[in-house]
Amino acid sequence: MSTNVLRTADGWWVLRGDRAVPVDTRAATTAELLADRAAVREAALSGAAGTPVAGLVALSPVTTPCRVVAQMVNYRSHARDSGFTGDVPPAFFRKASGSVSGPGEAIVRPAHVRFLDYEIELGLVMAGSLPIGAVVEDRDLPSYVAGLVITNDVSAREIQLTRTQFYESKSYPTFTPTGPHLALLEPEDFGHLLDLRLKLSVNGEARQDRTLADMIVRPARALTLLARFQTLRAGDLLLTGTPGGTALKAPPKAVEKIGALLPPAVKWKAFFRSQARNPRYLRTGDVITATIATPDGRIDLGEQRTPVAAANRHPG
Amino acid sequence: MSTNVLRTADGWWVLRGDRAVPVDTRAATTAELLADRAAVREAALSGAAGTPVAGLVALSPVTTPCRVVAQMVNYRSHARDSGFTGDVPPAFFRKASGSVSGPGEAIVRPAHVRFLDYEIELGLVMAGSLPIGAVVEDRDLPSYVAGLVITNDVSAREIQLTRTQFYESKSYPTFTPTGPHLALLEPEDFGHLLDLRLKLSVNGEARQDRTLADMIVRPARALTLLARFQTLRAGDLLLTGTPGGTALKAPPKAVEKIGALLPPAVKWKAFFRSQARNPRYLRTGDVITATIATPDGRIDLGEQRTPVAAANRHPG
Repeated sequence: MSTNVLRTADGWWVLRGDRAVPVDTRAATTAELLADRAAVREAALSGAAGTPVAGLVALSPVTTPCRVVAQMVNYRSHARDSGFTGDVPPAFFRKASGSVSGPGEAIVRPAHVRFLDYEIELGLVMAGSLPIGAVVEDRDLPSYVAGLVITNDVSAREIQLTRTQFYESKSYPTFTPTGPHLALLEPEDFGHLLDLRLKLSVNGEARQDRTLADMIVRPARALTLLARFQTLRAGDLLLTGTPGGTALKAPPKAVEKIGALLPPAVKWKAFFRSQARNPRYLRTGDVITATIATPDGRIDLGEQRTPVAAANRHPG
Repeated sequence: MSTNVLRTADGWWVLRGDRAVPVDTRAATTAELLADRAAVREAALSGAAGTPVAGLVALSPVTTPCRVVAQMVNYRSHARDSGFTGDVPPAFFRKASGSVSGPGEAIVRPAHVRFLDYEIELGLVMAGSLPIGAVVEDRDLPSYVAGLVITNDVSAREIQLTRTQFYESKSYPTFTPTGPHLALLEPEDFGHLLDLRLKLSVNGEARQDRTLADMIVRPARALTLLARFQTLRAGDLLLTGTPGGTALKAPPKAVEKIGALLPPAVKWKAFFRSQARNPRYLRTGDVITATIATPDGRIDLGEQRTPVAAANRHPG
């Protein structure tokens, strides 16, 4: 049974139903908390009455700076949305960890961004060092992965598609809402990962809803592929891709092939002209809710609830 | 006049002609050395005879972990090589800092990589914090950039092009040879940046040779664009793009447009079949030499000399 941890400005908490018990630890970073599991266990087992969770303001349970790595196109349903027909070669990209924000904080749309999109993703929080050349099997996951978080891989689509590299489009401040729960897993919880169901809605309208069974490259294999070139350490974050249902849909194949004959600037201008009629992109005032949990509640990452704000309404 | 610093297993050194004077500092990281400029000045001005540079084994003067950010397609000559005809939208990507290696260390080709390519790049080493929203003018550069290094943005082309994201293809260990010199600049040196000439040869055959005058997005503007989404701090590294002359050349436009009509897997298979006849990719035993300097020697980043080795010759 997993243990849900929250972080607030006052420190770390263990959830027990609708109450939270403070963790007696000097840990400031997520890596330091993971090194003090005894304090987490003590809070979980203590007889303290705790505080109502409803009164706490949760911050991201993943502290920064840390490495934030993400998997590209990693659900079959999203691959179809993105216009892939054959195999999708597994690929990774980086996000600036300065993009990580709290589970109730506003997503701030930069003034130059028009096509703002959401991507609910399961985040893996590393337990310890992943060295170059590591080969990770399912049975090894508990030594590498400490816990799970909800993340939203917010994306500025016109930057993403015209720059080809995803890094900038997904790295603006507040573009990785994270939390509320850091679910610390016990070894026996890892057998239930494929039951996790990711749900995201915008203003109450369901947009994304899939289980991990739809995932293409699963966590153990993802870590093996990543370890070909990237070391990770405790507290680093791996985003594992988003299921179908984003605002962005690839144009039909015929249109895409005609587009390929045009100079890139002309092609993108035409594409985003068509996207201007797509009502699914995020607008100021929209509220996104995201949950990830198993049906039996054995693993439950809580509910993320983030409004969308315009940059000019948040000077400084 | 810039001051050239070397790092060895014993610590930091200031170069004076063909001799090196040890820096009396406890700095372990590049950021710590930059915070102890007094010790560097003291070594530069001391009367010590020093040690012959020829007897020192230089390590990368940029210590890791640090952020390594790179600019995509940032020289007009490389844009032409890469098949760009119109404007190139400025884009960035990340490299794992685990790819940083010394200026005399072998570049190790992973066993699954066949199309290994070189890219000489000027590296900017940050002096201090670049906050989100920073607007950097040429006159501000001395507050943001402490010094310069030679870097080689080694690239596994079949990974780079088939994955679309550059991150993995440029992040394998030893894929960022760095150094030998960290040239710490004085404010008056920054007016000479455009005179810097980048030269790279393979087994004595010249491959790349351009000055910074060919650069598209120059350092002040690059930092401004980067500060839209990425904070940097002292000791972080920005690679500023490579000039023309890499082994990889884009196929002629007509071939590319036919390729765009094919499924990606078929297109790339045909492309790399043609590349197999290109003798310019790096082979085991090749030796790459790279220099960056102004003609008057005011700024001189030394000579990087890196052999190419196969992974299976370096077990473990």
